[in-house]
Amino acid sequence: MGRWQPDSRGRLQEAALALFAERGFDQVTTAEIAARAGLTERTFFRHFADKREVIFGGSDLLKEQIVAGLAGAPASADPLEAVACGLDAAADMLGAFRRDLSRQRHAVIAANPELRERELAKAGDYVAAVAAVLRQRGVAEPQATIAAEAGLAVFRVSLERWAGGEDDRDLTVMVREAMAGLRELAAGT
Amino acid sequence: MGRWQPDSRGRLQEAALALFAERGFDQVTTAEIAARAGLTERTFFRHFADKREVIFGGSDLLKEQIVAGLAGAPASADPLEAVACGLDAAADMLGAFRRDLSRQRHAVIAANPELRERELAKAGDYVAAVAAVLRQRGVAEPQATIAAEAGLAVFRVSLERWAGGEDDRDLTVMVREAMAGLRELAAGT
Repeated sequence: MGRWQPDSRGRLQEAALALFAERGFDQVTTAEIAARAGLTERTFFRHFADKREVIFGGSDLLKEQIVAGLAGAPASADPLEAVACGLDAAADMLGAFRRDLSRQRHAVIAANPELRERELAKAGDYVAAVAAVLRQRGVAEPQATIAAEAGLAVFRVSLERWAGGEDDRDLTVMVREAMAGLRELAAGT
Repeated sequence: MGRWQPDSRGRLQEAALALFAERGFDQVTTAEIAARAGLTERTFFRHFADKREVIFGGSDLLKEQIVAGLAGAPASADPLEAVACGLDAAADMLGAFRRDLSRQRHAVIAANPELRERELAKAGDYVAAVAAVLRQRGVAEPQATIAAEAGLAVFRVSLERWAGGEDDRDLTVMVREAMAGLRELAAGT
């Protein structure tokens, strides 16, 4: 243990991600995660329903952040700008998470087909939620879904670069820059 | 059997999609598919490795079409226009497929989490392939991946509308229109 002493949930996450990275997700038991964290398996199950929830437990909260940020966008914002407000909120949330743990999480997901497919399914959930709010804002289909897909793609690409350590800047800055990049692409410049 | 007599592969696809739609993908055996098509199970396995290949057998070919169309785009084309050339080729291929079978395929996938996640994983493969060709064309990251993600999103949305019968026009026309829609979104109009 270093000087940083996270709460039980944080310690379990840290232990689980380290073990998943070392041995592969399928080769790790909840008992081993608890032992590595210096906690009981019972404590593990107070925080997580299963191993997968260590990886995906934050997904619903992230979706809520995106939707709340989007719903709070000024009425004058065009669809992509409104989506960008949602992404700002999501980037604020994830940007506060430790970058090294985000990187481990990405590596663990990338190494496991089942986790990879689940992560993609979560991305589909985000798109559907964002498109629904855009339709409430008066954006017609297929524009609403296209804006949602493009915006979430911008977010995903930025998050991967941020977690991958290819770029030292804040996640929020990177997402904003990538969104500007999408607009440039579409302008043909 | 109606007047239309497709080849064995086509008859097996038609039989399989009808059975999947009636009973759910997991509840159908290859023997039943062969029987419905008036063929032997041995013939089924000459055409398909398993049930899933009836659904996903065309995916690699579709990826090749997209990549070939993109690689053949004029050097003067901006990144999204180059991607649009790839999507044209893909739309030509899928547009020749029977729309009713495409619709059944979409409904079968939508009803089954495993198939849904596999379809999403295939979409990820397309994005990676398109981004790789864009990088060869000199497009830097993250722009290459963002253009690939946005372009494939345009395609997916159009394909769903086409297969869903919400729009009677040719798939190629719908994809082109959706791509124009993406450019309008990005221009904030």
